[in-house]
Amino acid sequence: MTDFSKTRSLFYLPEGVIYLDGNSLGPLPLSAKARVAGLMTDEWGELLIKGWNKAGWMMMPRRIGDRVGKLVGAAEGTIVMGDTLSIKVYQALASAIDLVPERKVILSDSGNFPSDLYIAQGLIGSLGRGHELKIVEPEAVEAAIDETVAVVMLTEVDYRTGRLHDMKALTKKAHAAGAVTVWDLAHSAGALPIDLSGAEADFAVGCTYKYLNGGPGAPAFIYVAPRHADKIRPALSGWLGHEAPFAFDLDYRPGGGIDRMRVGTPPILGLAALDAALDAWDGVEMADLRRQSIKLCDLFIAEVERRCPMLVLASPRDGTKRGSQISFLHPQGYAIMQALIARGVIGDFRAPDAIRFGFTPLYIGENDVIRAVDILEDIMSNSLWDTPEYKQRALVT
Amino acid sequence: MTDFSKTRSLFYLPEGVIYLDGNSLGPLPLSAKARVAGLMTDEWGELLIKGWNKAGWMMMPRRIGDRVGKLVGAAEGTIVMGDTLSIKVYQALASAIDLVPERKVILSDSGNFPSDLYIAQGLIGSLGRGHELKIVEPEAVEAAIDETVAVVMLTEVDYRTGRLHDMKALTKKAHAAGAVTVWDLAHSAGALPIDLSGAEADFAVGCTYKYLNGGPGAPAFIYVAPRHADKIRPALSGWLGHEAPFAFDLDYRPGGGIDRMRVGTPPILGLAALDAALDAWDGVEMADLRRQSIKLCDLFIAEVERRCPMLVLASPRDGTKRGSQISFLHPQGYAIMQALIARGVIGDFRAPDAIRFGFTPLYIGENDVIRAVDILEDIMSNSLWDTPEYKQRALVT
Repeated sequence: MTDFSKTRSLFYLPEGVIYLDGNSLGPLPLSAKARVAGLMTDEWGELLIKGWNKAGWMMMPRRIGDRVGKLVGAAEGTIVMGDTLSIKVYQALASAIDLVPERKVILSDSGNFPSDLYIAQGLIGSLGRGHELKIVEPEAVEAAIDETVAVVMLTEVDYRTGRLHDMKALTKKAHAAGAVTVWDLAHSAGALPIDLSGAEADFAVGCTYKYLNGGPGAPAFIYVAPRHADKIRPALSGWLGHEAPFAFDLDYRPGGGIDRMRVGTPPILGLAALDAALDAWDGVEMADLRRQSIKLCDLFIAEVERRCPMLVLASPRDGTKRGSQISFLHPQGYAIMQALIARGVIGDFRAPDAIRFGFTPLYIGENDVIRAVDILEDIMSNSLWDTPEYKQRALVT
Repeated sequence: MTDFSKTRSLFYLPEGVIYLDGNSLGPLPLSAKARVAGLMTDEWGELLIKGWNKAGWMMMPRRIGDRVGKLVGAAEGTIVMGDTLSIKVYQALASAIDLVPERKVILSDSGNFPSDLYIAQGLIGSLGRGHELKIVEPEAVEAAIDETVAVVMLTEVDYRTGRLHDMKALTKKAHAAGAVTVWDLAHSAGALPIDLSGAEADFAVGCTYKYLNGGPGAPAFIYVAPRHADKIRPALSGWLGHEAPFAFDLDYRPGGGIDRMRVGTPPILGLAALDAALDAWDGVEMADLRRQSIKLCDLFIAEVERRCPMLVLASPRDGTKRGSQISFLHPQGYAIMQALIARGVIGDFRAPDAIRFGFTPLYIGENDVIRAVDILEDIMSNSLWDTPEYKQRALVT
């Protein structure tokens, strides 16, 4: 049984703050400070250029990739860290398109994070081969997978509502239709159990600054199924994805397996912070995390609906159908969130009208949920909310 | 007059080490440790998600880009930080190709860093429009610029020899031929005066972990001439390059000017270290730095040639024709460099036979040069170098 009081002690949480935005940026793991300081002093400072080999910097993207892999059901050697999520989406999608050269449709949904859609639009423009990005409603994805589709590109957990796609079923349907899949795990890695191998996912990408607590702008990850890894042509063919980076050949030859998804020199400070942050997962059972996450989310929904009836639930009510975040809608959502933040309850706002709360069992407990709803109830009970004057003020906040 | 004894005091240099590899990885600026620790504690720790606005994280890529701009002759608002150099090469080259759609030749040279060539090869493969990467010897670049060339893509300072291209003259010739330029400043930013505006460069990219001392894997930069910036189509169209990232529209609309070269969430820890590292340049006159760099390099050449005649100079003898690094050739170069490193003189080796030394006036002085040559002379005078036994041993090192 995972001891969440123990994991909570691993994070710094400011006095008076209830942090329900770990789905945007995880809090500071106490060990990350020491790890980064140690790297700067003992490795960069003392070893200088030798740090690349002696301190193992060069292998960090693979070593840490394996650590992330344990949290998302990926075998060793199938994930590598680096760059940003948008870059990793580009790499995955470009390679996925190559695998189904005769088809032109990239299927996604309106709940995909916009950057993924933007990256697809840019890639389609660069390729100039008549690909089409088809965006449907999340509920319509399954029916839209047909034999015109080359790639199904989805974010597993909808960043707005928390709605969870069935990765295994959709991947199966995609494969049956002759398509390949690109899964964005931004809102699911560290939020719920994921089984990339078991789902037979083709490509997956994710960021590490949300539920994995790697820090602002922490490096992203990419997964390629072993059956594809040695076949794909890397679109971003940088030197560290070369078979022999230090031979300085003039011609690119892709490295074996996941190594060809490496691009440039990896961001060592960010990787060090992430490496420390991942220690918090040692001893955490994903099934325990999931159970606790659903419990916290269910409690939040029940309390909010009971005490703040003017807020409309935008997330699936069934805990098994969502990630680890809850959104409520209100026309004054922006102002409500500003008021919450002013009183120490930190969630976030997503236009046009969603207030969004992340529930992260590693450091958030039932008491936090109750206290957050106490404050939300107090804010919502303020009669000003119903006056035109307030609305006026809220709009100029 | 720049006081280089003052700048030296800003860096940590391990006891007994003469660091002549700042052209690969600059040493630790003492202020970087405090800056990163402060960011982690006071910003990530205390502000959490609010750090993006309240601590100015979101604007760091632009603010720090302007600081780098001052060192490379770029106007405010023309440089943005992020990603790795390979990614920035991809963006610059993809946009440059678009500007000359009717031509198919990308001209580069064999002294370009291989990753730039690899990126070009990958991009050409993705585009599938019959582009050709034409690689000539560095000396042949000027003559090869003709009306078939779409893009001239060069590293200003040859990573192997330090040979310096004439950016202004080659850019002028490229423009006269109807081509655009992509300049890689990896080995020149912080090594010598650069005038991107004056040279009318079209695109430029660079890394910040060499002469700019930003730390292992520090973020890269990209420059786009203002005359192009609002016209180019970003190949890597990530959300932070969107006109309104937080509107979460489903369609990409490029941001104004250099902002469209942003891609994903920026690496804040790395940017913080770089920001601190750039403080070392406050009060440094680039003309003074250049004068001192040439003095150190000339001294090194003279001493090595006088005392180690078996080493063959691979760098231009004329200080105005090279960057801030010197290479010598020797068949046993790898073993010689290992012996030097074992005795605290850190340079590096580039296959097949070059030993390479960077001279960085911010923290390296004439005494360091003399002491380094003392040790090199001692190593080279060891008669073992001439015996078959040693060669045998050296090869298995």
